[in-house]
Amino acid sequence: MEKLSVIKIGGNVIDDAIALNRFLADFAQIGGSKILVHGGGKIASALSKRLGITPKMIQGRRITDKHSLDAVTMVYAGLINKNIISTLQGFSCNAMGMTGADGNSVLAVKRPVQEIDYGYVGDLTTDSVNKELLSALIDQSLTPVLSAITHDGKGQLLNTNADTLAATIAIALSTRFEVSLLYCFEKKGVLRTKESDGPIFKELTFRDFKKLIGDGTVTEGMIPKLQNAFEAARTGVKTVRIGHAEDVKKLGRTSFGTQLNYE
Amino acid sequence: MEKLSVIKIGGNVIDDAIALNRFLADFAQIGGSKILVHGGGKIASALSKRLGITPKMIQGRRITDKHSLDAVTMVYAGLINKNIISTLQGFSCNAMGMTGADGNSVLAVKRPVQEIDYGYVGDLTTDSVNKELLSALIDQSLTPVLSAITHDGKGQLLNTNADTLAATIAIALSTRFEVSLLYCFEKKGVLRTKESDGPIFKELTFRDFKKLIGDGTVTEGMIPKLQNAFEAARTGVKTVRIGHAEDVKKLGRTSFGTQLNYE
Repeated sequence: MEKLSVIKIGGNVIDDAIALNRFLADFAQIGGSKILVHGGGKIASALSKRLGITPKMIQGRRITDKHSLDAVTMVYAGLINKNIISTLQGFSCNAMGMTGADGNSVLAVKRPVQEIDYGYVGDLTTDSVNKELLSALIDQSLTPVLSAITHDGKGQLLNTNADTLAATIAIALSTRFEVSLLYCFEKKGVLRTKESDGPIFKELTFRDFKKLIGDGTVTEGMIPKLQNAFEAARTGVKTVRIGHAEDVKKLGRTSFGTQLNYE
Repeated sequence: MEKLSVIKIGGNVIDDAIALNRFLADFAQIGGSKILVHGGGKIASALSKRLGITPKMIQGRRITDKHSLDAVTMVYAGLINKNIISTLQGFSCNAMGMTGADGNSVLAVKRPVQEIDYGYVGDLTTDSVNKELLSALIDQSLTPVLSAITHDGKGQLLNTNADTLAATIAIALSTRFEVSLLYCFEKKGVLRTKESDGPIFKELTFRDFKKLIGDGTVTEGMIPKLQNAFEAARTGVKTVRIGHAEDVKKLGRTSFGTQLNYE
């Protein structure tokens, strides 16, 4: 099977122009077929604030109302995605920027209102990804670059978690490709201790992960990120790693970050 | 030769949510292969103002500085393009939103600094359009929807005139398709008099056009728009028409707007 790298780049790198540029230079040089998935970090929040849009929070969860959706659409799908695309073109990587609405590449379901109405948030299913379209673009030597905006197929854009989007794309395409899923962020991998500069695990199983939640070593945003990653490892993605954006060129080598094995 | 409609939708329609929705419903129903090109009307200016960015003008010409480029990238390529895409998907039209940077579809040249430095403005050449990519997307039954943002291939996004972009795409693709180029705006066509509700020309030649400039019937923004349109008619585009966005379904029929014939 042909190899495919699905790479998620995190918000802290997106927010730092120099780090982002270095990451994109490295990404452009990665051989073979690849897909990039990105969110938008704090730029969307900063823009919203400048426009006088206060992020709505209910029980500590962010709500995507109409104004917030407009802000993330402008920033993720416009400003960030198109600057990534032109930068990659400058590095001779023929990138194609997309949301899930483009070519109906990722179809989501608006999160049902239960205790909380999250607003225009899209959840993904196993059928969300348009494998035919993404495969066809890759066959044309294009590199799809997806911002984490999807749609419901009925005319509504939806804000979607970028970690989940990357995992869902990796899982869907693993029937056609030997997929490596790589989460790039601002740490070297999954830390062995709570020290932010401490040593990392070279490998981690799902069982280890649950223990680390239990003893408080893994907390907050890392929990859903790793849950997404382990789900990918469980369901057919060949290699799943999490590590520092600076090390993306080591992709696929055991020297990169933490490898996540379901069992 | 296969037929292709290249349709430009103007700013006044983009600014009016109801008119835009009606136009997109009609556009989705147009049979055969098609490409949509759009600018952004007053929404980018309004956003810039809310962000405290004052449009820079020199000798009455708008200058695209870094902040203005960010604003048009957010609004044209983000907010407007992605809302158009999700709306078209809702009308069962498999649209693919793009800038010229995406897939290197339209390569521009930053306007050289002479008397005025226009900033990040991209001029098009006869080689600007990536015919292979646009043809391949059309062959996949996708409908490319281009916002008027291009790039220089070296990492820089550029703001480009949407009328010129539509004409340049139509001309480039006329070697592969029998192209109809349609400019949709808020008037029925080229007016016979200066009355905004007056009768229109059913047909117009380039010689007529020059007379209408001479006697002041055609003025201001209509002059470059029609120049672009006549250039397309001169260089291989089969049919060039200009008319009201409400009438887009009459595309190709003689009842739609003003037909522009070079001779």
